[in-house]
Amino acid sequence: LLAKPPTNSRDRLPVYMGEVGAVWLYPSSPVDCVITDPKKESKLYGLKSFIEYQLTPNSTNRPVNHRYKHFDWLYERLLEKFGSALPIPSLPDKQVTGRFEEDFIRSRMERLQAWMSRLCRHPVVSQSDVFQLFLTYRDEKEWKMGKRKAEKDEMVGPMMFSLVEPEGPELDAAEVERRCEQYSRFTKLMDDGVRELLNVGHTHWKRCTGPLPKEYKRIGQAFGNLSTVFNSSKYPGEETLTEALTAAGKTYEEIAQIVAQQPQEDLHFLLETNSEYKSLLGCFPEIIAVHKAAVEKVKEADRLVSAGKINNNDRKCMNQRISCMSYSLQAEMNHFHSNRIYDYNRVMQLYLERQVTFYQQIADKLRAALNQFSTL
Amino acid sequence: LLAKPPTNSRDRLPVYMGEVGAVWLYPSSPVDCVITDPKKESKLYGLKSFIEYQLTPNSTNRPVNHRYKHFDWLYERLLEKFGSALPIPSLPDKQVTGRFEEDFIRSRMERLQAWMSRLCRHPVVSQSDVFQLFLTYRDEKEWKMGKRKAEKDEMVGPMMFSLVEPEGPELDAAEVERRCEQYSRFTKLMDDGVRELLNVGHTHWKRCTGPLPKEYKRIGQAFGNLSTVFNSSKYPGEETLTEALTAAGKTYEEIAQIVAQQPQEDLHFLLETNSEYKSLLGCFPEIIAVHKAAVEKVKEADRLVSAGKINNNDRKCMNQRISCMSYSLQAEMNHFHSNRIYDYNRVMQLYLERQVTFYQQIADKLRAALNQFSTL
Repeated sequence: LLAKPPTNSRDRLPVYMGEVGAVWLYPSSPVDCVITDPKKESKLYGLKSFIEYQLTPNSTNRPVNHRYKHFDWLYERLLEKFGSALPIPSLPDKQVTGRFEEDFIRSRMERLQAWMSRLCRHPVVSQSDVFQLFLTYRDEKEWKMGKRKAEKDEMVGPMMFSLVEPEGPELDAAEVERRCEQYSRFTKLMDDGVRELLNVGHTHWKRCTGPLPKEYKRIGQAFGNLSTVFNSSKYPGEETLTEALTAAGKTYEEIAQIVAQQPQEDLHFLLETNSEYKSLLGCFPEIIAVHKAAVEKVKEADRLVSAGKINNNDRKCMNQRISCMSYSLQAEMNHFHSNRIYDYNRVMQLYLERQVTFYQQIADKLRAALNQFSTL
Repeated sequence: LLAKPPTNSRDRLPVYMGEVGAVWLYPSSPVDCVITDPKKESKLYGLKSFIEYQLTPNSTNRPVNHRYKHFDWLYERLLEKFGSALPIPSLPDKQVTGRFEEDFIRSRMERLQAWMSRLCRHPVVSQSDVFQLFLTYRDEKEWKMGKRKAEKDEMVGPMMFSLVEPEGPELDAAEVERRCEQYSRFTKLMDDGVRELLNVGHTHWKRCTGPLPKEYKRIGQAFGNLSTVFNSSKYPGEETLTEALTAAGKTYEEIAQIVAQQPQEDLHFLLETNSEYKSLLGCFPEIIAVHKAAVEKVKEADRLVSAGKINNNDRKCMNQRISCMSYSLQAEMNHFHSNRIYDYNRVMQLYLERQVTFYQQIADKLRAALNQFSTL
């Protein structure tokens, strides 16, 4: 495993030492793509129906079409090729029933967009042949040939580490292990944190779309009903009160609707982002296990050298490789951190902005309802 | 029942025709009283403990002391004397355990105050000897003598109607019945409306003090926890994010507290007022039953006159009395309506004002939390 020679491929993966430590080489013009126009297509004379999405990459500005099945193929290739070293987020769930319902298609497209955007932002993934093929193939023939080539790719799994070319000094096994432990702790802790936020978010979503608006509606109806009853009294001069009570009732019925729709406006994005991170964080245990296994091998090598079973050169080679692995993980963690800071900054601001609007809107509505009452 | 001669008492109850129809004579200086200083007292050398409240009426400005037992005595007297004609709201519930806990004492005093204020506002009740005795007795001797006198009072129950002196023209049985039906419908409808508002109010109270703040707290803790995890990454330059996340977390924990305390600030008064009205409305079925029985008697009288069993004079006398009863009920309903308009105007404004403050406070807190994030 550790002893495989580096290839002469153009796919080499330099790791530079930046301000934050080891970093990947970021492409000068970042890749991006926009997914639009989900269209129902069919083949075999209408026997098979599916949704085709249109992807337009910024590099060619030429749209290509893909169905979910193709995304799934890409995911499998990326997982096979990079899964030992980089977290490849899983695709949005497959779904059997309701595949052609509008809400489902919109929600799936939004998630495929988030998935593609995240991969586009990745300096290693986005520059890979298979990813470029997916975004920029010219015709069916190029797509089919590219597919066949990708499926035969031998530079997959731990082979990737042989392409890593770190700028920094070689690290010893102890240092590699220390860093590995540190990343393991962090990703586990963040995984717990993200799961708890998702749990409480889902609970809160249910309350905000279920019992809470029902109660606001009932309060509104109770005010409206009292107003109707008061109106039936025929007692003179209470129009101001009954009209104000009716307005207050309507206001609470409106608040019920606002409350019920609000999670879609704010909690949605918070939960989507955290789901993406849950998926990314779920990849780390395996990546870290690969590293730990390598560290164990290097430790074993020390004994094998003493026993005269392998020579010192092999031992040095193994250490060089484990150092490369560590630089790869460091670069990846730094990529993860910078994305994490960007994503959480953005999503927390969006969440709070919309929460402010939500509460402000309710306060304003209630103020208007209050002003309908006459001061005594 | 209907044939009893009117007494020559000074307790006559004139009913005038005002803008809104029949009205009681309202005293030129309205009675009011303030309840303060609940004190734990004991007698029998400490064997019996009780809470004594201090009542200060505006008429004498001289405080008198009463314990719950005395309020209950007053309630029984008022119910006996006026219960056939006027709704006498029931006292706040008796309670066996926790009688000396501070929260209970405060809540009971608040309710006794509301009970007394409502009776003080009543032109008939507030002017009665027994009510005046309760508020203005000078010493233990006057109180004991007054008590004995009140317990021997013979002008109780339907006797009260013989004191009513209406200004308007005599009403026939059909008109009396029509009005009685109208009041019956209104009070039933309002009773339903009030009960529904109380039901949803209690449900909402439980949600606002139970699961909802727990969720806000969990959301806050989840943000705070993520902030701690992020901080442990040692990745440079994310202090703004982690500090803002901590602040956002604390904000949601504060919101949890505000949410949990809010019902006491707003829903409380809405529910207290509606509970008072539920108690008042609960008295109407009996009052209306007394009227309906009288209407039936008058209808029967027509047949008895035809059959020569009673003379025309008795018949006229009965009609005069039923007309008085109807004016009494009209005056009472008009008193009820004017109080209802005042009370609901006041309590709805208070409720909405505090709801506005509540939502505005949350919006402002979240805006402050949002501003801690750096714009990207």
